[in-house]
Amino acid sequence: MADPPERSFSESDEEIMRATYRALREHGYADLTIKRIAEEYGKSTAAVHYHYETKDELLAAFLDYILDRFVETVRGVETINPAERLELLLNKLLVEPAEHYDLLVSMLEMESQAPYNGTFRERFQQNDEYIGYMLETAIERGIKEGTFPEVDAEHVATTLLTIANGARTRAVVLEDLEALGTGRRAAEEYVDSVLSEGSERGS
Amino acid sequence: MADPPERSFSESDEEIMRATYRALREHGYADLTIKRIAEEYGKSTAAVHYHYETKDELLAAFLDYILDRFVETVRGVETINPAERLELLLNKLLVEPAEHYDLLVSMLEMESQAPYNGTFRERFQQNDEYIGYMLETAIERGIKEGTFPEVDAEHVATTLLTIANGARTRAVVLEDLEALGTGRRAAEEYVDSVLSEGSERGS
Repeated sequence: MADPPERSFSESDEEIMRATYRALREHGYADLTIKRIAEEYGKSTAAVHYHYETKDELLAAFLDYILDRFVETVRGVETINPAERLELLLNKLLVEPAEHYDLLVSMLEMESQAPYNGTFRERFQQNDEYIGYMLETAIERGIKEGTFPEVDAEHVATTLLTIANGARTRAVVLEDLEALGTGRRAAEEYVDSVLSEGSERGS
Repeated sequence: MADPPERSFSESDEEIMRATYRALREHGYADLTIKRIAEEYGKSTAAVHYHYETKDELLAAFLDYILDRFVETVRGVETINPAERLELLLNKLLVEPAEHYDLLVSMLEMESQAPYNGTFRERFQQNDEYIGYMLETAIERGIKEGTFPEVDAEHVATTLLTIANGARTRAVVLEDLEALGTGRRAAEEYVDSVLSEGSERGS
C-alpha cells in the first residue's frame, strides 16, 4: 500500500467532524447522538443527516478524519532524516495524545466495538496499516542510507504500534496518563536496541 | 504490595463464574444479562441474585476470578529461576490468551468502560498492579542472583505489561490473532536487550 485512504472533507464535513469531536469529548461514545452532534454543529439534526445517514456512518467518517489530520501533520516533515522522522511519529503516537485524553477514552470505546461493527473494524485496520506503513518506510529508508542495520522493518514497525496501542489502552483503563510517557520511553529503548549500528536484533 | 486481592470463591460462586464465562463468550459484554448467566448456570435468576445483587457486582467478582485463576496457574512454579519465571509469565500473558479469543473481546469491552465504572477501574488497576508485581519480583530476584544487570525493574515490568496490553488490544480491534505472537516476540527482544549481561538499558 502506498497512499492514505482517499477522502476529502468539504467545509461542512469539516465542521461536522469538529462538532463530533466536541460532542465525543463531552458525552463519550455511548451517549453520543446525532442530536448532540447537531447541537455542537449549531444546526438541525436534518442538516447532519443530509451529510451522514446514520451515526455509524458519521463515526466512520470521523475515524477517517482523525487519520487524515494525523497524516497532514506528519506529511510536511518528510524531508528530515529517518531517525528524526521515527522520533516525530513516535511523539505523534505517544506524546500528543496526552492532550486529548477524552478522545482516547472515546476511541477505546469504538475500538472495543470493532468485533461487532465491520465498518469500525475496517477503519481501524486501514489506519493501523497506514501508520505502520509510515513507520516502516522511515525504517527502510534508514536501512538504505546505512544509518540503521538490516532489520525486519515490518516487525519493528508493528512492535512500535503495539507499544503505542498498549500505552494508550493503559492510559484509559488505568486512568493513568503516565502510561503514555512510559510507552514513549519503552519505544525509545526498543528503537535504540534494534536500530543502533551493530545490533542484530529484529533481523 | 505483596499479596493478591483476597477473595475466596465458594462452590456456587465458582459455578456462577464459569457460567458467566460461558455467557460472555456466547453473548459478549453488551448483551450479557443475569438471565443469560442464570441459563448457563442452570438455575433461576433469583439464585444468581442471591449471590450477586447487580450485574456490575457479578462482573467485578468475575474480574477477581480471572486474576485468581491467573495467580493459581503461576503460583505452583515459583521455584524455577528468574529467567524461566519471566518466560512463563509472558507466555501466560501473550500465548495462552489466543485460546480464549472471545474472552479477550469481552475484556476489552469492560476495559473501555473503566472510565465510567469505578468498580471495573479499581479491579483493572489491582490486577495490573499484581501482575506487574509478579514480573518485577522475578526481575529483582535475577538482579539479586546476578543473572540480570541492575535495571529499573519496575519500568521493565511496566514495559512488558504495555506490550501485553497492546498485543491484546490489537488482537481484538484488528481481528488479528497474530498480534499476540508479534507481542510475544517483541517482549522477548525487549527482555533480551535490557536483561542480558552487559546491557545498560532500562537502568
